[in-house]
Amino acid sequence: MLDVEAALAEAEAALGVIPAASATAIRAAARVSFYDAAAIAAEARQAGNLAIPLVHHLTKRVAADDAVAARYVHWGATSQDIIDTALVLQLRASVPSIVRDLQRAAEAAAGHARRHVDTLMPGRTWLQQATPTTFGLKAAGWLDALGRVEHALQSALTGALVLQFGGASGTLAALGPRGLAVAESLGARLKLSVPVLPWHAHRDRLAGLACALGVATGTLGKIARDLALLAQTEVGEAHERPAEAGGSSTMPHKRNPVRAAVALAAAVRAPGLVATILSAMPQEHERGLGGWQAEWDAIPELVGVSADAARAVAEALEGLVVDAGRMRANLDITRGLVLAEAVVMQLAPALGRQEAHALVEAASRRVVEEGRSLADVLAEDPAVTAVLGRPAIDAALSPEHYLGCAHTFVENALGRRGT
Amino acid sequence: MLDVEAALAEAEAALGVIPAASATAIRAAARVSFYDAAAIAAEARQAGNLAIPLVHHLTKRVAADDAVAARYVHWGATSQDIIDTALVLQLRASVPSIVRDLQRAAEAAAGHARRHVDTLMPGRTWLQQATPTTFGLKAAGWLDALGRVEHALQSALTGALVLQFGGASGTLAALGPRGLAVAESLGARLKLSVPVLPWHAHRDRLAGLACALGVATGTLGKIARDLALLAQTEVGEAHERPAEAGGSSTMPHKRNPVRAAVALAAAVRAPGLVATILSAMPQEHERGLGGWQAEWDAIPELVGVSADAARAVAEALEGLVVDAGRMRANLDITRGLVLAEAVVMQLAPALGRQEAHALVEAASRRVVEEGRSLADVLAEDPAVTAVLGRPAIDAALSPEHYLGCAHTFVENALGRRGT
Amino acid sequence: MLDVEAALAEAEAALGVIPAASATAIRAAARVSFYDAAAIAAEARQAGNLAIPLVHHLTKRVAADDAVAARYVHWGATSQDIIDTALVLQLRASVPSIVRDLQRAAEAAAGHARRHVDTLMPGRTWLQQATPTTFGLKAAGWLDALGRVEHALQSALTGALVLQFGGASGTLAALGPRGLAVAESLGARLKLSVPVLPWHAHRDRLAGLACALGVATGTLGKIARDLALLAQTEVGEAHERPAEAGGSSTMPHKRNPVRAAVALAAAVRAPGLVATILSAMPQEHERGLGGWQAEWDAIPELVGVSADAARAVAEALEGLVVDAGRMRANLDITRGLVLAEAVVMQLAPALGRQEAHALVEAASRRVVEEGRSLADVLAEDPAVTAVLGRPAIDAALSPEHYLGCAHTFVENALGRRGT
Amino acid sequence: MLDVEAALAEAEAALGVIPAASATAIRAAARVSFYDAAAIAAEARQAGNLAIPLVHHLTKRVAADDAVAARYVHWGATSQDIIDTALVLQLRASVPSIVRDLQRAAEAAAGHARRHVDTLMPGRTWLQQATPTTFGLKAAGWLDALGRVEHALQSALTGALVLQFGGASGTLAALGPRGLAVAESLGARLKLSVPVLPWHAHRDRLAGLACALGVATGTLGKIARDLALLAQTEVGEAHERPAEAGGSSTMPHKRNPVRAAVALAAAVRAPGLVATILSAMPQEHERGLGGWQAEWDAIPELVGVSADAARAVAEALEGLVVDAGRMRANLDITRGLVLAEAVVMQLAPALGRQEAHALVEAASRRVVEEGRSLADVLAEDPAVTAVLGRPAIDAALSPEHYLGCAHTFVENALGRRGT
Repeated sequence: MLDVEAALAEAEAALGVIPAASATAIRAAARVSFYDAAAIAAEARQAGNLAIPLVHHLTKRVAADDAVAARYVHWGATSQDIIDTALVLQLRASVPSIVRDLQRAAEAAAGHARRHVDTLMPGRTWLQQATPTTFGLKAAGWLDALGRVEHALQSALTGALVLQFGGASGTLAALGPRGLAVAESLGARLKLSVPVLPWHAHRDRLAGLACALGVATGTLGKIARDLALLAQTEVGEAHERPAEAGGSSTMPHKRNPVRAAVALAAAVRAPGLVATILSAMPQEHERGLGGWQAEWDAIPELVGVSADAARAVAEALEGLVVDAGRMRANLDITRGLVLAEAVVMQLAPALGRQEAHALVEAASRRVVEEGRSLADVLAEDPAVTAVLGRPAIDAALSPEHYLGCAHTFVENALGRRGT
Repeated sequence: MLDVEAALAEAEAALGVIPAASATAIRAAARVSFYDAAAIAAEARQAGNLAIPLVHHLTKRVAADDAVAARYVHWGATSQDIIDTALVLQLRASVPSIVRDLQRAAEAAAGHARRHVDTLMPGRTWLQQATPTTFGLKAAGWLDALGRVEHALQSALTGALVLQFGGASGTLAALGPRGLAVAESLGARLKLSVPVLPWHAHRDRLAGLACALGVATGTLGKIARDLALLAQTEVGEAHERPAEAGGSSTMPHKRNPVRAAVALAAAVRAPGLVATILSAMPQEHERGLGGWQAEWDAIPELVGVSADAARAVAEALEGLVVDAGRMRANLDITRGLVLAEAVVMQLAPALGRQEAHALVEAASRRVVEEGRSLADVLAEDPAVTAVLGRPAIDAALSPEHYLGCAHTFVENALGRRGT
Repeated sequence: MLDVEAALAEAEAALGVIPAASATAIRAAARVSFYDAAAIAAEARQAGNLAIPLVHHLTKRVAADDAVAARYVHWGATSQDIIDTALVLQLRASVPSIVRDLQRAAEAAAGHARRHVDTLMPGRTWLQQATPTTFGLKAAGWLDALGRVEHALQSALTGALVLQFGGASGTLAALGPRGLAVAESLGARLKLSVPVLPWHAHRDRLAGLACALGVATGTLGKIARDLALLAQTEVGEAHERPAEAGGSSTMPHKRNPVRAAVALAAAVRAPGLVATILSAMPQEHERGLGGWQAEWDAIPELVGVSADAARAVAEALEGLVVDAGRMRANLDITRGLVLAEAVVMQLAPALGRQEAHALVEAASRRVVEEGRSLADVLAEDPAVTAVLGRPAIDAALSPEHYLGCAHTFVENALGRRGT
Repeated sequence: MLDVEAALAEAEAALGVIPAASATAIRAAARVSFYDAAAIAAEARQAGNLAIPLVHHLTKRVAADDAVAARYVHWGATSQDIIDTALVLQLRASVPSIVRDLQRAAEAAAGHARRHVDTLMPGRTWLQQATPTTFGLKAAGWLDALGRVEHALQSALTGALVLQFGGASGTLAALGPRGLAVAESLGARLKLSVPVLPWHAHRDRLAGLACALGVATGTLGKIARDLALLAQTEVGEAHERPAEAGGSSTMPHKRNPVRAAVALAAAVRAPGLVATILSAMPQEHERGLGGWQAEWDAIPELVGVSADAARAVAEALEGLVVDAGRMRANLDITRGLVLAEAVVMQLAPALGRQEAHALVEAASRRVVEEGRSLADVLAEDPAVTAVLGRPAIDAALSPEHYLGCAHTFVENALGRRGT
């Protein structure tokens, strides 16, 4: 906010709206260390917003050195001009680190995709083993989605880096005919776009950025959920490299997925924050009552929550310990059932998809009930052996033969990044 | 869903995966009128999703005519391929009407901005009259925001028009080496982009579209709130042209802003729906449990809610009856107080902003307490008259002299549209 | 709504406000089958609410038989009186089935708690095996929570069963001095409480009921999540008895937890619906604009979503197939690590909690790295054997010796229900 | 958290689980001033929760004085026991001030209801003037709702004041047979209820309290919205007594409703926070991953937001400046239209409600179009004068004759409170 006030004074001085010496004095006083943030925050409660007490204290300090300059503090601006523009500056300062952590996470996902392009593991749907997939494809899915949400976040941030400067009712009336020139100069000094008109009560750009943070956090939550599920004691296919101070307070063997927890918690919190920011959009007339104020905490919290999630997932993926042996072993838990579809597809040309499906469904039930392998059960069924001999059954039940386009998908996802 | 199944069969036939005659038979059976939607919906409750019973009924119908073709229904696909792709097709069919209504609303707003570029009215902040503005500038603000949300919605829709096709675990394993070629052909037939890899558990594109709907609805809600506030009995500056059947059931004089109510209700509902769709994002592994299912109702509802809001605001703006006289009259309610800032700015170069502010604040209190005009009170104050004579006071208190860049802002907003 | 209109006429007739014959005629016309719901819904879009066209059609039908009676349709009421009271009647008709399904679920949970009071299984925290617990205690936790949310829902429903009757602005002015007597009679006829005053813009009772539905759905989601996690292929400790039409469209071996999916999807949707209903609370003045209208769809949807979840969890628990052998076997996966805490507690009196913790933590690492059992590793450590001999180590590592109050907790939870 | 650790040690000492001297040493070390909160918070990020580093530092401090006692810090507890119980203690310390502010607000509302029981003002529906009401009835509506939400909040708080104590997996295994006795003693020392069983992953009580805060904030938002609308420059019927430091930074005449803004912002934020807490409910198994962690910030924020709203509305109502003259004057803005319904009711017995409605609707249109009073227009219509003469028309159009049960409703609302 002090940066905005100082740049405003300089823009106005450059255009002859206020004396050059006043701008110098205001800039000199615009240092964070000069002010008691807690006191200003306390006064803001009475005043209704943070800019009123800040301008008061800034003016007092300027006045101590230069009574004339004190007259020109906050010249032509309204509180919301300063608060909104300062928010935009803070977003510019904070969101890029989220973008970078998304890139780190993507880089780590790409590494896993490359290394594990042919690492077999069970595909899982509805939390049940389905057909085989590769850990490479799973990681490529993360990579692909991370790329999209990173791009969308970058684009939404760019869209939100817009100056707010309209004065009391958005007309810049207090600056007379020089309002637009001051706005242009102020925008240039702060390196912010100058909008077609002030947007005090039109919050779509901020809401769009909030949404991009929300969607990114959703994707990070999806990855974290996968990691947490893979790290389960009974699955054991991958786990976060333990943090130094990690571990449970009571159970020495526990290696809690603390980074996944951070990202999952963020994915629980972000939707409510996005909803708050959307709910705040119908702001009244030229500047609203209630909606704008609701953003003050919600937007910084959403940035913080998203940043936590991005860093946590980047660290989790960078330090992920993958157990390819356990992945392969888990594919055998169902004694061939995860390849039931493969057999269906082999039988279907001869028997039709629905009949093949019914036949293999019955065999699958026997596998479960009798504790035998699908290969053995199928080999006993003349309807099957009429179409497939035992070697063909065994081949159909080899997971490495039933990966379809997995390899290509991974290569394409990696290729997209120029790797 | 029937369109997807038919196109899938045709793509597979074109590539020799299934017989050409089978595709013809499947296409012939893929007519909505052949099926009992309510029965399929009821069966879906048992089955867990809509595709399972649909495929069952489709196969039965195909089988009645062509037993071979029946074997190839849904060949290589998983339920979610069909449901997601069908959703994408429905979004393509429905969202553009929202875009058109946003354009209609923008067109109507542009008309108001043009006609009322110089129509004086009170600017209002925190629901209090602030300084003067023009109805043209208010309408230009609507226009400007509508343009942005329309563009963002169009862009998010384009991003979401992506084929879903991955089979059970997203590898297209059931189609062997021809999976990708089938995907390409299917995408081309449905005129959908083919993604780098299946996105069963990565919902960011849909969530991005949901967010764009949510942001658009927030902007529509903002406009509706302005309209509802302007239409208040005590304000009376604009009102919706009554619908034919409008009116209260008990109060013959009432002209309820029914279209604003629709948009405001939508703006209350959309954030919760967006939050639901974001909350659903962390979907497990290759295909999720609970999150995906939560989208089934939430996405169509959000589209419906947004569509209602867009149509309502388009109609409200197209039929808006503006009372410029009342706008001008309302500027006089405060007996000059809304121009207090104008006087501050005139006095400030001589007295400093804070002193000028304090002086006019005191005068404003007397205006309220004594029921007199600000001009009269100021004219009695020697500290004021030392700087401004009565004619200068009166000029400072003329709202048409205190509009700053309002006219330019409106012209720029209209210029952006090439009007 | 027809029931409300008919009861209103009868209440007014009983008090001599309208002729008795008119009430008879209105009652006769108040049959759902007489009206075209779709047409009324279409007209409601123009009118702004459902009551306006309904009253119109009802009056027309009454008029066809009795012109005098037609004058007295809707006498003294406002649309919102009818819509809100009808909503309350619908809640009374629908919510009790949710209460009953919560009771069914509780009954089923109690059965599991009783049968499995001593069935050992791994306790799991942060999705990692922690220390042993029993399936009885897990089920008792469900039972305990279901009892609370059922009670809270019943109580919130009772609190919401309140007549709405206030006329245009909530004064019952149209009925003159007899307003309150009509309200009392109407409440008695509909068996609804009569409030201290109309609550058109005070929605706390409905919001409270919505919250109770939301909390109940959250608890149902928690149970469903447990069930889905227990049913994972790699865990296999419990699964829903398959529905007849269940099963995957492509994978014959899959037994998707379709009921858990319904409840989990509900738990994703309910929070957004509750938030919508809370967001709608700040309704303007005597009757609001936007907030009330947002409730129209959100409340019925929330009831539907909650009802789906309650029925799904009741069915899932009633048909739950529990594999106690697999539960016991899963306790051995960590080769004793889940009992690490038990050893810490045995060593702590001699060594201090933190030192014992550090020692066992080191041993645990060796268990993981060397693939040996915790008992074997500990038996080699003189610091351990100085305190515990091998038999004591083995006893400490027996899960049945480390269940603390589990049995008592289960008995207490069952005792609370008088079982 | 230190209070919980100390009470735990004392409970265990009382039961002979740990030495009495150890409990004394732990209690002595359990002072907030001994610890560096910021450092502990920083370590918590690595550890995954706040209790782990806190226990670490507490143990270190205890060890400095008493090595034996250090062994017994946190004996038998898990991190979540401490964090949850500390949360409950903080809720007990903070929520009652919200209850008191709700009571203050109710008291102030009761004062307005009593003083203004017969103060005429326009009733407003859909943001349009409807029929007359009294400010007393509006205030009585606030009073009535505040009483309900205060009662519900108190009741939800009581329901949430429950000890959390279960150890690693909720069995209290580490305490062997004495677990329950320790729990009872600990509960008694902290004056918290002891639950039937630990509730680590069952969050319904906290969610119920969150909901009660959300509903209370919704009611506060409704009151704030009314206040903000009444304070509009064009309405001017009531305004907050300005805060000392209030006022706009640029407009000396502005008296922004800063307290209403606080409550309205709270009403925008609370629904998203409640939704977050509901979304977090499906926590996994014995202790969850992500959901619990999401509560850590969301619950305190919701308490803070609700507290701000309650204090703001209490202050706003206590300092509300009511302009009864302006209320009466605003009733005349429509030149009688707000009493159109009154005339309909007078004409209806003779003409039927719908015909009377149509007739007065036509007259109302002429009032609007011709700028005349409803009395004058009606007096020209023979269909009217056949039923009502001019004196009867004037009487029907006197707002004080058309208040129905308003006075009684106010008295009943006040009577409920024993006033």
